[in-house]
Amino acid sequence: MSKAQRDDQQPDEKPASTLSAGLGWTKVSCPCCLSEAVEPLVLVKLGEEVRPETKRWIIRLIGAPQKEGGAALLAHPGEDASGDIIVVSAPRCTLQRAAEELGLCKTYCTGEMENFSYEDRDNFRHSDNMESFLTLAERQYIVKYELEGLHAQRDVRIPGLADKFTLHHRDNIWRKLNSAGVVVDTFPLHKRQQLKKLSETWYSGNQLSQPLDSVNAYFGSSVGFYFSFLDFYTWSLLPPAIVGLSITYFSSDVQKEVVESVSGSQVENHVEDTGLPISGHMVQAVFSMLWSTVVMELWKRRSFSLSYRWGTLHLAERFAEPRPGFHGHLGVNPVTGRVEPLFPEWQKDLRMALVSVPVVGIFLGLVVLGMLCFYWAEDQVQQLHLGWDSLVSQTLLYVPSVLHILYTNVLATFYKTVAASLTEFENHREESAFQNHLTAKVLVFTFFNYFAVLFHIAFVKQDVPLLRKRLASLLIVTQLVNQLTEVVVPFLVDRFVSAPHRTESEDDPQEDKFRNQITLPVFPGLFAEYIELLVQFGYLSLFSCVYPLTAVLLLINNVTEIRTDAYKICKLFRKPFSAPAANMGVWQIAFEILSFMAVVSNCWLLTLSPLSLKMQVEGEMSSTNIVLMAVLAEHLLMLIKLMMAAVIPDEPAWIRTKRAHMEYTSMQALRQQTMSTDES
Amino acid sequence: MSKAQRDDQQPDEKPASTLSAGLGWTKVSCPCCLSEAVEPLVLVKLGEEVRPETKRWIIRLIGAPQKEGGAALLAHPGEDASGDIIVVSAPRCTLQRAAEELGLCKTYCTGEMENFSYEDRDNFRHSDNMESFLTLAERQYIVKYELEGLHAQRDVRIPGLADKFTLHHRDNIWRKLNSAGVVVDTFPLHKRQQLKKLSETWYSGNQLSQPLDSVNAYFGSSVGFYFSFLDFYTWSLLPPAIVGLSITYFSSDVQKEVVESVSGSQVENHVEDTGLPISGHMVQAVFSMLWSTVVMELWKRRSFSLSYRWGTLHLAERFAEPRPGFHGHLGVNPVTGRVEPLFPEWQKDLRMALVSVPVVGIFLGLVVLGMLCFYWAEDQVQQLHLGWDSLVSQTLLYVPSVLHILYTNVLATFYKTVAASLTEFENHREESAFQNHLTAKVLVFTFFNYFAVLFHIAFVKQDVPLLRKRLASLLIVTQLVNQLTEVVVPFLVDRFVSAPHRTESEDDPQEDKFRNQITLPVFPGLFAEYIELLVQFGYLSLFSCVYPLTAVLLLINNVTEIRTDAYKICKLFRKPFSAPAANMGVWQIAFEILSFMAVVSNCWLLTLSPLSLKMQVEGEMSSTNIVLMAVLAEHLLMLIKLMMAAVIPDEPAWIRTKRAHMEYTSMQALRQQTMSTDES
Repeated sequence: MSKAQRDDQQPDEKPASTLSAGLGWTKVSCPCCLSEAVEPLVLVKLGEEVRPETKRWIIRLIGAPQKEGGAALLAHPGEDASGDIIVVSAPRCTLQRAAEELGLCKTYCTGEMENFSYEDRDNFRHSDNMESFLTLAERQYIVKYELEGLHAQRDVRIPGLADKFTLHHRDNIWRKLNSAGVVVDTFPLHKRQQLKKLSETWYSGNQLSQPLDSVNAYFGSSVGFYFSFLDFYTWSLLPPAIVGLSITYFSSDVQKEVVESVSGSQVENHVEDTGLPISGHMVQAVFSMLWSTVVMELWKRRSFSLSYRWGTLHLAERFAEPRPGFHGHLGVNPVTGRVEPLFPEWQKDLRMALVSVPVVGIFLGLVVLGMLCFYWAEDQVQQLHLGWDSLVSQTLLYVPSVLHILYTNVLATFYKTVAASLTEFENHREESAFQNHLTAKVLVFTFFNYFAVLFHIAFVKQDVPLLRKRLASLLIVTQLVNQLTEVVVPFLVDRFVSAPHRTESEDDPQEDKFRNQITLPVFPGLFAEYIELLVQFGYLSLFSCVYPLTAVLLLINNVTEIRTDAYKICKLFRKPFSAPAANMGVWQIAFEILSFMAVVSNCWLLTLSPLSLKMQVEGEMSSTNIVLMAVLAEHLLMLIKLMMAAVIPDEPAWIRTKRAHMEYTSMQALRQQTMSTDES
Repeated sequence: MSKAQRDDQQPDEKPASTLSAGLGWTKVSCPCCLSEAVEPLVLVKLGEEVRPETKRWIIRLIGAPQKEGGAALLAHPGEDASGDIIVVSAPRCTLQRAAEELGLCKTYCTGEMENFSYEDRDNFRHSDNMESFLTLAERQYIVKYELEGLHAQRDVRIPGLADKFTLHHRDNIWRKLNSAGVVVDTFPLHKRQQLKKLSETWYSGNQLSQPLDSVNAYFGSSVGFYFSFLDFYTWSLLPPAIVGLSITYFSSDVQKEVVESVSGSQVENHVEDTGLPISGHMVQAVFSMLWSTVVMELWKRRSFSLSYRWGTLHLAERFAEPRPGFHGHLGVNPVTGRVEPLFPEWQKDLRMALVSVPVVGIFLGLVVLGMLCFYWAEDQVQQLHLGWDSLVSQTLLYVPSVLHILYTNVLATFYKTVAASLTEFENHREESAFQNHLTAKVLVFTFFNYFAVLFHIAFVKQDVPLLRKRLASLLIVTQLVNQLTEVVVPFLVDRFVSAPHRTESEDDPQEDKFRNQITLPVFPGLFAEYIELLVQFGYLSLFSCVYPLTAVLLLINNVTEIRTDAYKICKLFRKPFSAPAANMGVWQIAFEILSFMAVVSNCWLLTLSPLSLKMQVEGEMSSTNIVLMAVLAEHLLMLIKLMMAAVIPDEPAWIRTKRAHMEYTSMQALRQQTMSTDES
């Protein structure tokens, strides 16, 4: 049913009120879950050609108990049996069992966070009221988890579908329905009031802190971790910003460089001899190198506390069913003893080593090749222009840049699909492993793409002034452009293109409010947000000694970034599903690797600094000795960083104690249990 | 009672036969442990002045059940109540309970290794027969563990002792008895027959492999791990030995260097230009750098398998009582819920950071100072000798060396006591943590002591020929000397000094056989053995590119080392106690750190190699470029090594699965248990 049709039907719709009144839902299979009000959690958008019998079949499947191969959820057909939506909710028992299966921790009667156990549910606080026991994001994720976990128990023909879509034993039903075009979209529903309250405490005022717990509750822990990291990282930019500002203020040569980078002209090069062999550059570089390790170590500790608080410290993903896309021969899982598809570890490793790594390598090579071709072509065109100065040659000057940008973009788009299919081919059992490997692949490429030119300038051309100019322009221009494209454009599109079709009043039936959410674009995921932070962090740490004001600019950028990102996720996109996460996953590692690469790059850049060049020219030190000094400094800093990373424990002591306690009690329980099974 | 006295009494001793016949032991407190034969496990040597009432009190204490504050062991007074020994054994229940407390894994009825549970003992294989259920080393360690864990339950006066030795509540009884001079020694007894069988399969023949399982059973897992590592390491020396030999054979310049190093004279320096910029040095260096990482990663995997096989993979030391020397305020342990002394973690860290680290640093500084003084003095003496050539000045030439050796030895001895008291002061809760921190301290110092001169030659003097000469002499001379002092001297002492007093015949009462073991010297521990391997490994990896035959010499040395070490521990010393260990502890880390230091050192040495010097002289490459090349190579190798270490999993996949299974079952058990306690 198209939107226009719906608009026509709206006035004479009657069964619409059933949803808001909690009527019209499928029956709950277990008596304990009977309740008056049913909370709509997830919207399933069906294809336009879907027959009513197919829809009825799906609704029955969603509502059937798990032992009959159903999802044990609650389904509502929307206005009528022929409408193109199904609203899904979950009864208490299903939510609780899934919470146990996922390994979520909840507050026990003792006040500690404990792995939730369905059998022991009465000892957990608020376990009778799902809306305060599980967060909205968790409830919605569980619905998705159950839907995507649906497996055919035997060969079944889906009513109203062609024979080629017949389900075979252990086929994933939801994937089949997706590929058959029956289910077009499955997405969690916004809750207006909760969202309004959240946005008020998040970005409407002049708050300094973000309501992270509410963000986690509403959007889930992966979004929660992103905003927590953004918050933490922004605050931790204060020290380098202060150092950078004071160095700029007190050190005349740096001031001069800043003027240079802004004006673009070379100020004459007479450095006053202050008598000190240490420049502001060096102070800035050493400071930011050590700072980055401290920040990352402290973040790890914060991440552990957040994970404890949000109950995701002991996720049991590896003990749960494999992700829907996982395939292999049926067998008995040696860990859990369940029958499920198995895929040998070594085969996965082999695929990664022999296929993924070479392919990613080739793409990185293509990036380098593209860059080299660009430099070569630019050189050629410049030569041509010098010999034959005309309008044609002047336009030709832009051709290499345009071609390079085109090439890079095409390559990036192509790479993304390749990375996705490579990761699918690797066949990871857990969703988080899949996501991490996919992210890692795209991350390496994107990072390379961003930094190839800067590295070329720094390490091959060895041109510090050019590097400084590039960095300054990147920091100022790119960030402005980013914020524009990320927020202003979607905002304008939403306001002037989509919104007029989406007039909404309080009296509208709830189905229409839900339908309105379909018109919002899909949330593009956190990759772009994280990579922006990573690239920032790269500018700051890799080339910090070149442009001391980096931290200041980033601080200003991030303070607004927090607000724009929050606005974006709340208003401009559909609500995303968010799997419970215990940490930032692969991003954590990326930031840490960057902080070590920073030492190499900074020490190298210091050998190119004006001071060392001056010393070389004046014969105070041979170039070999300067390099040796830099190498020595690099090794020393590496060592200090490694020692700091080893000495600062990743886990706060109180969490370590709690984990040890948990381990101890489960060890005790295992001994008790073997005894009691023995007796019985 | 002195030895002379005993020898007099020997002929008219009558109750001696009681021990061999299993009579005269204290009564077992629990009925299930009654058995005919009692196996003497540990000998307690009392002071000569100990009164019979004190001995009786100790015997009663050893035999009393644990709830009365006793050790629940079996004690035998030797010949009579006034003799100076107590023989201790352990009944089945005590052994089993301690095995559970220590977290030992044993074969379950399913054939898997599972954490032993006393309640579930009937499902473990051989759990009725202690001699096949627990290894001899485990049984003996448990006796020691129980004796050293004795705590006074209230204030008690020990009969026959002065008032100042009165026990207070929670005083450690065994420590008090030691400090009062009542208990002079506690050591495990050899079992002649088992030992004989072990030695036959171990070192008497021409075996290529060691009977590691039997070694573990007889001497315990820490000794087992040492010999396994020695074995593994020796075999893994084959590839570098082959590479070294072929490089020596095929490469003329290396041959020349070898001749040089042996003859000590400088052969004229004309390198034939082979046209290749790669010398045998480089091949050797790169090979050994990558080899060391592969070896250490593979060893980690082997170590995990051994640990699984020996049942030490899940040791529960941190859940057990703290080590005897641990002190703190009494409180409730948040992990186990038991009342025991607690000591805040941060206070321990503070003590390490503010006391231990600076003190160790000062000692390392003293080593460097000593070395500098030595060089300075040698210079001075040389100058003096040149100016005033006489017999006096010639003797004076030796003075700096002698003084330096004296200084180093005094410093090392002093440092050892300082390290021990520093570690005691740090107040570690677990014995293994204590041992690791102590070992780490001594290790750093000893290593520094060994390598300071070589580093000085390589990095400060930059004199490769001297380094090569030193290395060759160290490898050949030191190893010979080591083997001599380690084995031949103790053997001679044993044969000609101790043995004549220790004539033994089959008919001797068992007490006298036990007494004979007292006359053997105490086993000096594995530190010296490990440090020897570490120093070897250091020669091989740090300076491998200088002397390609290192691996060959080490291989030859180690093949004999295996035999001499085995002979030594079997014959020349008292049997040592050996705590169950899951790995090599801090030595593992030391070897890994060394393998990374090797990259730095080798790349540096390659810039000093004749080839690069030649290139510099001939102007093919500037010295700056050579250094840059070396730095690049270093970074690349580091990266490859890090990646190899990350890619090769530390744990074999099958052990990972078993661990995951264990975790899963204990998680399930915890859920079950909370439910059942709920119901009851």
